Amino acid sequence: MNFPSKLIEEAVSEVAKLPGIGKKSALRIVLHMLKRPEKDVQSLATALVAVRTKTQYCKQCHNISDDELCGVCLSTKRDRSILCVVQDSRDVLAIENTGQFNGLYHVLGGIISPLEGISPSDLNIESLLSRLQSNTEVKEIILALSPTMEGDTTSFYLQKKLKPFGVKTSTIARGIPIGGDLEYADEITLGRSIVSRINYD
Amino acid sequence: MNFPSKLIEEAVSEVAKLPGIGKKSALRIVLHMLKRPEKDVQSLATALVAVRTKTQYCKQCHNISDDELCGVCLSTKRDRSILCVVQDSRDVLAIENTGQFNGLYHVLGGIISPLEGISPSDLNIESLLSRLQSNTEVKEIILALSPTMEGDTTSFYLQKKLKPFGVKTSTIARGIPIGGDLEYADEITLGRSIVSRINYD
Repeated sequence: MNFPSKLIEEAVSEVAKLPGIGKKSALRIVLHMLKRPEKDVQSLATALVAVRTKTQYCKQCHNISDDELCGVCLSTKRDRSILCVVQDSRDVLAIENTGQFNGLYHVLGGIISPLEGISPSDLNIESLLSRLQSNTEVKEIILALSPTMEGDTTSFYLQKKLKPFGVKTSTIARGIPIGGDLEYADEITLGRSIVSRINYD
Repeated sequence: MNFPSKLIEEAVSEVAKLPGIGKKSALRIVLHMLKRPEKDVQSLATALVAVRTKTQYCKQCHNISDDELCGVCLSTKRDRSILCVVQDSRDVLAIENTGQFNGLYHVLGGIISPLEGISPSDLNIESLLSRLQSNTEVKEIILALSPTMEGDTTSFYLQKKLKPFGVKTSTIARGIPIGGDLEYADEITLGRSIVSRINYD
């Protein structure tokens, strides 16, 4: 594209680096900026820089946090006997929004992926193990990773590492999504949903 | 959503104000920011603020410009006898990218839309007329507005206003898009494409 202005071109190329945003959407966003009051643009810019420079990760669970320990880890209302291991902070948010889990989290910061060069040592696995060593309260660990090749590999690796601690481990149920259509379910999911069927009584 | 951090929440709400970006994409973008080097985030923020504070509009055609007059208006290679009237700067970019137009532009800055409260006086129409008054070089005006209700209304209004100047006016062809399938074309477009058929000789 031939941009009419160097400034536009620079801004578009910066915005187009964001995930899920191509050149056309970037241009749309930049032209939208031109129409907004200057203080709106300033506050967007400030919020982005602030989030990058000031956000920390919880020392205990590695979730995003404004302070040394996150709100979940600090809360006195959470069940400290159950830990949910997730890939990243987005998953914590997603699970928190279900309102179905009241334990603590442990954010791995990724999953094992030889293709992307992510090995177990790149993840917060050591800190999970030392968390268990120093804390005998934990009775159950839920491995809430995506049911993909990488997620399953990571779950398998963690199961082996967690065995010596003698805590119960579990994983989230795989099955037909609620509202999903049997006809369109893939055969592996459908097969699993029959094998792990739920009794009515 | 219950965000684990106030900073994240603020950044997400700022990013979600951008066009075409919902809460989920905004969160994805903000979490992506956390993983980027600080200088990348800083340069995105700087580029956005710069584009808002430093961009100007060409005094002649109202296109986005780094200087008082835009590159197209300043160019000595453009045909000054033909003006293309468009809704906004994005359309200039789109037409420039076709490489099929070598004249000058006039950016209206919107189209007449009673529903959104945009009247002719909100658009750069007066400046188009005074541009014609002071300049007798212009021989043809192409009204390149979208073939929508508002676009057609604006074209109709402009035709009336331009009549006294005695310049030739035209509009972009309506028809079946290249690569489009006749079967899926709407009947109005298909009907128009038959009425305005192109002779082979």
